[in-house]
Amino acid sequence: MHDRPFLEQALQLAHNGLVLTAPNPRVGCVLTDPHGCVLGQGHTQRAGEPHAEIMALRDAATRGHDVHGATAYVTLEPCSHTGRTPPCCNALIAAGIRRVVATQQDPNPLVRGQGFAALRNAGVTVDVLPPEDALAQACRELNLGFFSRMLRGRPWVRMKCAASLDGKTALPDGQSRWITSAPARTDGHAWRARSCAVLTGVGTVLADDPLLDVRWIDTPRQPAIVIADSTLRTPPDAAVFRTARLRLVYTASHDAQRSAALQECGVTIVQMPNPQGQVDLAGMLGDLAQREVNELHVEAGARLCGALWQAGLVDEMVLYLAPKLLGQGRDLAHFGPLHDLGEAIALEFQDIERVGVDLRIVARVRGRELF
Amino acid sequence: MHDRPFLEQALQLAHNGLVLTAPNPRVGCVLTDPHGCVLGQGHTQRAGEPHAEIMALRDAATRGHDVHGATAYVTLEPCSHTGRTPPCCNALIAAGIRRVVATQQDPNPLVRGQGFAALRNAGVTVDVLPPEDALAQACRELNLGFFSRMLRGRPWVRMKCAASLDGKTALPDGQSRWITSAPARTDGHAWRARSCAVLTGVGTVLADDPLLDVRWIDTPRQPAIVIADSTLRTPPDAAVFRTARLRLVYTASHDAQRSAALQECGVTIVQMPNPQGQVDLAGMLGDLAQREVNELHVEAGARLCGALWQAGLVDEMVLYLAPKLLGQGRDLAHFGPLHDLGEAIALEFQDIERVGVDLRIVARVRGRELF
Repeated sequence: MHDRPFLEQALQLAHNGLVLTAPNPRVGCVLTDPHGCVLGQGHTQRAGEPHAEIMALRDAATRGHDVHGATAYVTLEPCSHTGRTPPCCNALIAAGIRRVVATQQDPNPLVRGQGFAALRNAGVTVDVLPPEDALAQACRELNLGFFSRMLRGRPWVRMKCAASLDGKTALPDGQSRWITSAPARTDGHAWRARSCAVLTGVGTVLADDPLLDVRWIDTPRQPAIVIADSTLRTPPDAAVFRTARLRLVYTASHDAQRSAALQECGVTIVQMPNPQGQVDLAGMLGDLAQREVNELHVEAGARLCGALWQAGLVDEMVLYLAPKLLGQGRDLAHFGPLHDLGEAIALEFQDIERVGVDLRIVARVRGRELF
Repeated sequence: MHDRPFLEQALQLAHNGLVLTAPNPRVGCVLTDPHGCVLGQGHTQRAGEPHAEIMALRDAATRGHDVHGATAYVTLEPCSHTGRTPPCCNALIAAGIRRVVATQQDPNPLVRGQGFAALRNAGVTVDVLPPEDALAQACRELNLGFFSRMLRGRPWVRMKCAASLDGKTALPDGQSRWITSAPARTDGHAWRARSCAVLTGVGTVLADDPLLDVRWIDTPRQPAIVIADSTLRTPPDAAVFRTARLRLVYTASHDAQRSAALQECGVTIVQMPNPQGQVDLAGMLGDLAQREVNELHVEAGARLCGALWQAGLVDEMVLYLAPKLLGQGRDLAHFGPLHDLGEAIALEFQDIERVGVDLRIVARVRGRELF
């Protein structure tokens, strides 16, 4: 069919929303006339600003094009509910769009087929790619965090680590600045930028007092900062609070004084104890999904990383390997010991790329994206 | 110039000698007539069998071609001395070759320019690529072990490791079969096959009793087996002795009984103590070069690997990373602790490739090939 190039174009547009649209999905839209001429195009903007469809309609209007009888290509089902903005379906119908070609259904329970139904009820022809189509998969992949939040009730958890070739993240004394080179660290900021929130542990905050913000690349927004801190040891003046708009500390402690000190600095304290008196990590992820976190970016020490791996809560790993050997030092993730190699956490390499002198490995828990 | 394609063809031929020619270099030769028609070609055979030039002359003869006035393209200076075979220079001169184009000088002190001189004295035109030419570099790279033995007096030391993504070569209890998958292990045999000798430590022999031979790919020869064994604990019936033609144990022990038991099994015992009563690793490498080892393939535990790294004796690492996490386990190489990240062993990524589900990383000590 002749639809594919326009869907591909819409996906390209959707990519422009990578660091922009959260917590909304990254969506692109292309409008064409019956001869296949592009009338307008656009992608979803920041939360509260227009979705892709509205941007494309506005683009067509700006260009002086009449969209009556046009076809709209979208990388996700147009919304049918009033959220931060009015339903896109209504706008498409009102504009006289005759046909909508979408790569897939919106997993949001407030939409999930109701957008297509509303369009069809209004006489609009709706075509949707089969779910196994590579293009549909690519559009889903771009919004894996959004799909995860909607379908699993937890964010897509991506762990970022930097290590030497022999798997050490720091010298035995904790020295870790810097194992990887500047291009790798800048690349790491790009992964932070696309996430809704950055998670770390109080151990890292106390040891390194990191900023964990996005500063080496341009970004229209800073991710939220999330700290797992069982005993509320986080200092209210931690550097990590400096730029984040949303600051969350998950704890098992009821220390009123420490809570108050943090709250005074704009920190939201969330009680999330497990029976062992530590933070219930699965509960924390569920709560983060409630707070509209799609992609959670983890940068933490071996203890929190190990606990997340052991609990099966990590979905993906972005590992920068520096071409050096440290011999001894801190491990990537402390868990186990395992008693059989069959118990190893099984991943799959997704992407291998050189970044400057370093190597970036993206590995995913095998089959984890199949939810 | 029109010579390059023939030199490239000769390099292709030289690659055919990868697992064949040791301890001789891998060399290719192409003979052309003045019109650029190929008359014959060949590559160096096993030690004691003909070199590339002789094979090419024979090939031309078999095809019924007259090589008077022909040009010989060779990836290394033709030899001028009588080793296991007569000098190739004489054969080229006798055959009436008018011009020789070589990528580089032979680093062998028995040749080193004397081949070119002999040819020129006989009226043969000799052209040699500048050393910085990419093709000359590629021919040198193919014989880096030979160049290392000739110029540094020690083999090119390549360490092969297999680890999980978090840098563990085994579980804490030593379990390591198998961390990587069959394609990676087969690929590892190809690296063994190209080496002259495989080095391991007595610790690995006692713990795993490995074969360390080439059995998952075809090979015309087995590398020698070398064991670093300070106290002569190697059992005479170790599996590692099963297929190797040459068996060497380097030791700091003078235990006559154990020596005798090993010698009875065809093992050569080499006394190579350092002041600490362990094997003098640098001395061992020098001795191995004397024994015509070009490429030494190391598969050992963290202790021997760490000692080799710390002594600056490793040139290159072939690291297979399996897409899995073990959390805790044995390290790649035990050395240090370092006190500053600046002390890290600095490598450079040479080649990154997926092998089956695993990743193969070839990393080289930065600038190490510049000798």
